[in-house]
Amino acid sequence: MRNLVMTVSYEGTRYFGFQSQLQGNTIQDRIEEAIEKLMGEKIHITASGRTDAGVHARAQIFNFITSSSIPIQRLALALNSRLPPDIRILEARMADPDFHARRSAKRKTYRYTINCNRVPDVFQRHMQFHHPTPLNVEAMRHALQALIGEHDFTSYCSVKSTKPSHVRTIYDAYIETVDAETGSGPGLIHVWVTGNGFLQHMVRIIVGTLMQVGEGKRTAANMGDVLRAQNRRLAGPTAMAHGLMLWEVVY
Amino acid sequence: MRNLVMTVSYEGTRYFGFQSQLQGNTIQDRIEEAIEKLMGEKIHITASGRTDAGVHARAQIFNFITSSSIPIQRLALALNSRLPPDIRILEARMADPDFHARRSAKRKTYRYTINCNRVPDVFQRHMQFHHPTPLNVEAMRHALQALIGEHDFTSYCSVKSTKPSHVRTIYDAYIETVDAETGSGPGLIHVWVTGNGFLQHMVRIIVGTLMQVGEGKRTAANMGDVLRAQNRRLAGPTAMAHGLMLWEVVY
Repeated sequence: MRNLVMTVSYEGTRYFGFQSQLQGNTIQDRIEEAIEKLMGEKIHITASGRTDAGVHARAQIFNFITSSSIPIQRLALALNSRLPPDIRILEARMADPDFHARRSAKRKTYRYTINCNRVPDVFQRHMQFHHPTPLNVEAMRHALQALIGEHDFTSYCSVKSTKPSHVRTIYDAYIETVDAETGSGPGLIHVWVTGNGFLQHMVRIIVGTLMQVGEGKRTAANMGDVLRAQNRRLAGPTAMAHGLMLWEVVY
Repeated sequence: MRNLVMTVSYEGTRYFGFQSQLQGNTIQDRIEEAIEKLMGEKIHITASGRTDAGVHARAQIFNFITSSSIPIQRLALALNSRLPPDIRILEARMADPDFHARRSAKRKTYRYTINCNRVPDVFQRHMQFHHPTPLNVEAMRHALQALIGEHDFTSYCSVKSTKPSHVRTIYDAYIETVDAETGSGPGLIHVWVTGNGFLQHMVRIIVGTLMQVGEGKRTAANMGDVLRAQNRRLAGPTAMAHGLMLWEVVY
């Protein structure tokens, strides 16, 4: 038996998220079907974590145990020819027997992209949240600082979370701006967040609250006040899924 | 009556090209419908030129004559709310009465993008032609030089062209490379071509021939030999539409 680990990139637009569920049409379903077609084995893959409907991944990681002996260097190409064009295996490797894509993950990075130009970018419309009214980026930068470190993130987590603990560590959280081409507006805001793990909707609720800081509806200091209150109702709305991308998982 | 000129961006993936035709579903149809809904006027727009099915535009230009008095600064937003999300008006301006989007155009720039990495980019898959086997970029750069200047482009033009003259001037033609992120391959090749006008399939046949130079199936010098022969059969295939983007029209 081999423990295989793969890196997969997907555009989440037309899927009900990563993880298999009753109504079907998830990224996990498509990958498991491709593996079954290729290897003749019905297996279950384990990802570093689920992503919501509409959320994308530049580099999600999953692993599975297989008795197949197909050479590792052929696997990515062979699976890609059996996957829809919005899911692509970037790399396949052998892992140690005890490697587990979720439990072994040390840190994850997410990026949320806000397009602040007057008109959305047609080519990136499925990967950018369009917010044409002005945002105070300096206030947003300031607000994000409150999240860095080990905290209970109950305020920035779906009330449906079933996790026993909402304590997570954010190693880094910052804003990168990208200037627009002449005349089209202020450009893009990328919100980057790296942590040891993320709760349900955590990045989206952080970004939804952060946008209210940018709009002047909250002070920058409120971001930390909300965190300390441990009360989801005090945070802002869950930002739209399509601006979010799982960027990297480090083991 | 006002002569209005607009800049429009579109992802051509799901359209039968820019120009209206019997089977419908063109970008021109969608824009004329949106104008009719907004202004109550059935008008015909004139673009700088047509684009093929699947070809994109970062900034296509069109104009039309209207009796509508809707304030110019509201037009882009009002039309965008009546257009599908893969077509967006970037700007609307008043033009001189004699401005004509096709006849007044002085130069146009197209970009063709080739993704040379092992695996295609799921997020750019509709805008990049995937070519995972190696290309000799230096040979391609050399070959492109033969096209610069005023020439008869019969060899690099669809045999269905009905234009009385195939003489056009290419002002600039060059290759820009963009490195890939670590490990994923050699990156992207952008082929940039600027000229005073383009014949049917011209950029796509140039790129199809150029890729054969890159693959070593033709010498760089062959690009100019084919040009001088004025014979479409000597050139390479028409490159896939989806790598092509109308970048800019200058007046």
